[in-house]
Amino acid sequence: MNSFGRIFRVTIFGESHGPMIGVTIDGVPAGISLSKEDFYADIERRKAGAAGTTPRKEEDEPKIISGVFNDFTTGAPLTILFENNNVQSKDYDAIKAVPRPGHADFVLNRKFKGFNDYRGGGHSSGRLTLALVAAGVVAKKVLGDQIKISAALTEAGGNKDIEAAIQAAIENQDSIGGIVTCSVTGLPLGLGEPFFDSAESVISHAIFSVPAIKGIEFGSGFKAAAMKGSEHNDAIINERGDTATNNAGGINGGITNGNELYFHIAVKPTSSTPKEQKTWNEQTKSVESFTVKGRHDLCIALRVPVVAEAATAIALADLLQIVNCYK
Amino acid sequence: MNSFGRIFRVTIFGESHGPMIGVTIDGVPAGISLSKEDFYADIERRKAGAAGTTPRKEEDEPKIISGVFNDFTTGAPLTILFENNNVQSKDYDAIKAVPRPGHADFVLNRKFKGFNDYRGGGHSSGRLTLALVAAGVVAKKVLGDQIKISAALTEAGGNKDIEAAIQAAIENQDSIGGIVTCSVTGLPLGLGEPFFDSAESVISHAIFSVPAIKGIEFGSGFKAAAMKGSEHNDAIINERGDTATNNAGGINGGITNGNELYFHIAVKPTSSTPKEQKTWNEQTKSVESFTVKGRHDLCIALRVPVVAEAATAIALADLLQIVNCYK
Amino acid sequence: MNSFGRIFRVTIFGESHGPMIGVTIDGVPAGISLSKEDFYADIERRKAGAAGTTPRKEEDEPKIISGVFNDFTTGAPLTILFENNNVQSKDYDAIKAVPRPGHADFVLNRKFKGFNDYRGGGHSSGRLTLALVAAGVVAKKVLGDQIKISAALTEAGGNKDIEAAIQAAIENQDSIGGIVTCSVTGLPLGLGEPFFDSAESVISHAIFSVPAIKGIEFGSGFKAAAMKGSEHNDAIINERGDTATNNAGGINGGITNGNELYFHIAVKPTSSTPKEQKTWNEQTKSVESFTVKGRHDLCIALRVPVVAEAATAIALADLLQIVNCYK
Amino acid sequence: MNSFGRIFRVTIFGESHGPMIGVTIDGVPAGISLSKEDFYADIERRKAGAAGTTPRKEEDEPKIISGVFNDFTTGAPLTILFENNNVQSKDYDAIKAVPRPGHADFVLNRKFKGFNDYRGGGHSSGRLTLALVAAGVVAKKVLGDQIKISAALTEAGGNKDIEAAIQAAIENQDSIGGIVTCSVTGLPLGLGEPFFDSAESVISHAIFSVPAIKGIEFGSGFKAAAMKGSEHNDAIINERGDTATNNAGGINGGITNGNELYFHIAVKPTSSTPKEQKTWNEQTKSVESFTVKGRHDLCIALRVPVVAEAATAIALADLLQIVNCYK
Repeated sequence: MNSFGRIFRVTIFGESHGPMIGVTIDGVPAGISLSKEDFYADIERRKAGAAGTTPRKEEDEPKIISGVFNDFTTGAPLTILFENNNVQSKDYDAIKAVPRPGHADFVLNRKFKGFNDYRGGGHSSGRLTLALVAAGVVAKKVLGDQIKISAALTEAGGNKDIEAAIQAAIENQDSIGGIVTCSVTGLPLGLGEPFFDSAESVISHAIFSVPAIKGIEFGSGFKAAAMKGSEHNDAIINERGDTATNNAGGINGGITNGNELYFHIAVKPTSSTPKEQKTWNEQTKSVESFTVKGRHDLCIALRVPVVAEAATAIALADLLQIVNCYK
Repeated sequence: MNSFGRIFRVTIFGESHGPMIGVTIDGVPAGISLSKEDFYADIERRKAGAAGTTPRKEEDEPKIISGVFNDFTTGAPLTILFENNNVQSKDYDAIKAVPRPGHADFVLNRKFKGFNDYRGGGHSSGRLTLALVAAGVVAKKVLGDQIKISAALTEAGGNKDIEAAIQAAIENQDSIGGIVTCSVTGLPLGLGEPFFDSAESVISHAIFSVPAIKGIEFGSGFKAAAMKGSEHNDAIINERGDTATNNAGGINGGITNGNELYFHIAVKPTSSTPKEQKTWNEQTKSVESFTVKGRHDLCIALRVPVVAEAATAIALADLLQIVNCYK
Repeated sequence: MNSFGRIFRVTIFGESHGPMIGVTIDGVPAGISLSKEDFYADIERRKAGAAGTTPRKEEDEPKIISGVFNDFTTGAPLTILFENNNVQSKDYDAIKAVPRPGHADFVLNRKFKGFNDYRGGGHSSGRLTLALVAAGVVAKKVLGDQIKISAALTEAGGNKDIEAAIQAAIENQDSIGGIVTCSVTGLPLGLGEPFFDSAESVISHAIFSVPAIKGIEFGSGFKAAAMKGSEHNDAIINERGDTATNNAGGINGGITNGNELYFHIAVKPTSSTPKEQKTWNEQTKSVESFTVKGRHDLCIALRVPVVAEAATAIALADLLQIVNCYK
Repeated sequence: MNSFGRIFRVTIFGESHGPMIGVTIDGVPAGISLSKEDFYADIERRKAGAAGTTPRKEEDEPKIISGVFNDFTTGAPLTILFENNNVQSKDYDAIKAVPRPGHADFVLNRKFKGFNDYRGGGHSSGRLTLALVAAGVVAKKVLGDQIKISAALTEAGGNKDIEAAIQAAIENQDSIGGIVTCSVTGLPLGLGEPFFDSAESVISHAIFSVPAIKGIEFGSGFKAAAMKGSEHNDAIINERGDTATNNAGGINGGITNGNELYFHIAVKPTSSTPKEQKTWNEQTKSVESFTVKGRHDLCIALRVPVVAEAATAIALADLLQIVNCYK
């Protein structure tokens, strides 16, 4: 299913080279102030965004076509559309013949029996993360001002000096990955269930919808595997449940404990590296060298933080509304 | 929700100190051979299981009470029960007063307003993984003989020599964590969806239902974050989609690619360490030292592999049945 | 799927001749008082129940095995089991050979490829309504004391004098159907959604889970089809939304309006009539006469009211909890 | 939730006076031929459509913006939009002050705390049935050519001579209701589940999403309540399960039996009758007379058949795809 959530329910649609992409969100409470201006900041953060880039506010303009009336949510399904303006004509047959390594081209072709829209990645394109970001803006509104989600790139190409890492990638002309750290403050205790819908389950489910993510760890995560129990356990220090340390990353037994929730995610290097690569050619039926055409992000991880925030917000909005059912 | 899956739908129930625990699985196809003997091997693997332990087949005996007739599944909901025989009387008030650090005691108390069954962890107890393992046995049957899931502890306490690590933990009298590696062969290409129900999303959702798991990485995972695109991309080498390397861990764009699927999971150290710890005392309203009573696994990660296999099987059974809808 | 509900989620399991049947309910709020005594009244109402029948409290004894602690719900999945004590050995091969007309025998055999438990109707047996009734008791508790659901048989065999109708059926030795009227008072305004999850949609979904139901009409229902708009419209008479008449049956535009909710359901005559009938014989491959063996209810509609109440309560509990999400 | 289906999943969005309405369908198999021409016939049938009306193909033009490529479905979410061109400026404050009897105005205002888009009924407008009809066209394609769904108005204002009934309504200047009969041929045996997702449950769930529907009966329906078992039971006459009669309406025990499936639905009279009515005035806080302004259908039931077909097709497409999961 291409939708997420039990109560705060998000469905995204569209293809890279179709007329538009969009998102429908069902389950938004009525009475939340929302206008297209609310979307600009996060949409802007998602853009290519190297220092010195011209702000291009006229692009990726959200069009709210349902669920909002007089700048407040109505409680009806909320749909936001974005036009695809910069679609260019390309030699799509070439793309069809040569499934790009690291991309989903090959599996999409087989899974959908050749009927998938292969132009620019079709529905699997990173373009769709714009719809995710828009859903994230609405989710953040549902979470309210007290809950703050913040994600940042904390490592790129194995280097904590990210500027240097990007510079090296440009010089090497080879793409790099990175690590994004996401933290959430102001979250109430009690989100998540002991089994199946643990907070980690629901958040990771949403996060792995973000293209290029290959790993997630909560709190001390993989480091915890090498820790001792006496080191890892977080002592509870007061009636609110504040803990002296936070190795648990804000989640005990699948349930948020009211402390800061944080996790790291691993972003693989951009599949479209400028380097020559080998792959299967569906026409010649042989392995051949090829080079990806066009301009691509050398470090897609740079653009992941705002998308990761959106996925996190969507997951938390759903968990929060479910908890509200029981009040 | 304490259930998982859209089509192959698993609900587990029961408490550590209740009369029994169990699992109901809806969506099992009719005509799969299944008898209680099918459960013994995995149930046995889940037991404490140090070398030399007496096989105790009379315990954890599965009782199939619905959905199976003449040793074949009927297509009706399948329920398996396990009696809790070894429940011992304890000073539960002590447990209630002192929420154990690293455990869910505190959050369960607050989330459920004090109505949770706190004895032995209640519904959040590791005892419930027995129900997960039972569901995993059924899921493996649904997946069929071609698909093989296999998980093993590959690191404990930061040491790849696991026996030595356990020995050291015994000497230190402090619990340790570990890393479990899970791999799946024989999986068809095409499981998972581009967004929201990516194979990684669905598998991680299930895996984070296993207590003590704090991280998951698919393929090269966190290492990928430090790799270059030219290193990380897996060249496709034939029409079936076999790849020369497998950094993707068998998943591209959220969809299984027919190569081996593998992932690593981080298991935190057992929360119940023998070491003295500090925690909040709900009665004295102060932070106090305390020591966990009773015998506990020093390395719960030893018992995780079969549970991780079960969670993986459950996730894959659901993904496989969904893909079958479209055939 | 053999489960119902988004938040208050009910799964029933078991077969007529298996060891036990039961129900698991996920999504029950913590802190609701619940003990097995709460189930007796509705279980008693479901029994064969002709005047003068001995109360048989020792049978159909509910066994709450999870989700309740110290007579209060814990918030964990709640499972209730019932033993099947009166299962008798029968010539099941005969039943297998002759699919009873009006019953599901034939379709179950084909749908489940012969693997279904055909003894006594298997999972499709009316026995399973006992699990529904148990879930209904819990649902009524979730709804609270203010909301009262009450169903009664208002017509049998086309006759409003029900005693006379039953008497005639006994004399004719032919089964009869009936009409059950269900009403709900104290329901808040606002349950249900404009599309897809209208109150009528969700209630009818639940009601058609009750065996033998073939029709449902809300408010004036089929009579409304012959009414004029000026007759049918219910004038709103005050700020609370009370209406002068109640042709809408308490639902406008799919949403409860705070007035009494009521509907009628059509119960077909018991399929197992004592009269000789013709049906296909799977062994002789021809149409043959046959007569149903054993004792059966001549008017199953007599036992429907408490089951219809249960189905209604389950539907309303789910709708109510969903509405609570948005508060 | 404003969505329907487990696998073939439909979400409709939009408001009567918003810029556009639409539908997103997730779970459409890849490779089904689909172009906007496929929608014209059903869209045309939904229009006001009195004899002699000019065909207005330029209106209600479907805009497929995702999920279709080169006139075949891609397997990605399929979105269809319709512009709202004929939106007229009106005195909306009047509508807000006077909740129309029989309409959802009052409950929408209370449920959504005054934030609902009340113009023309907002999201609850009959306009949204255009999106339902579009989803129905796709659902019919998924069902394939063998399965034929056909609905017709068989009674209006209590009269089987429908033309005469309409004429009388025009003379009386009062709206009327009607009965729509829907039948499905070519349906395979086996759709539906014994409990909760019976074929009747799923179809009625979808049908009660159609505005103005207040009753549904399958097969003999309410008449069955007055029949004898020996009359009502349908004798099975061959190995395929054909029956001599069809009182069951093609469904036994919640499962389609391969015979014609048919049901009747009750459509209430159009709430917007030209007759003067009384209702609550939110501004004057008193009951007052009022007359609905504008032109309205005197018999909305005339336009229901194609919408009922769509709802039926949506329900059956979902049931069919779920059954396919088990093959």
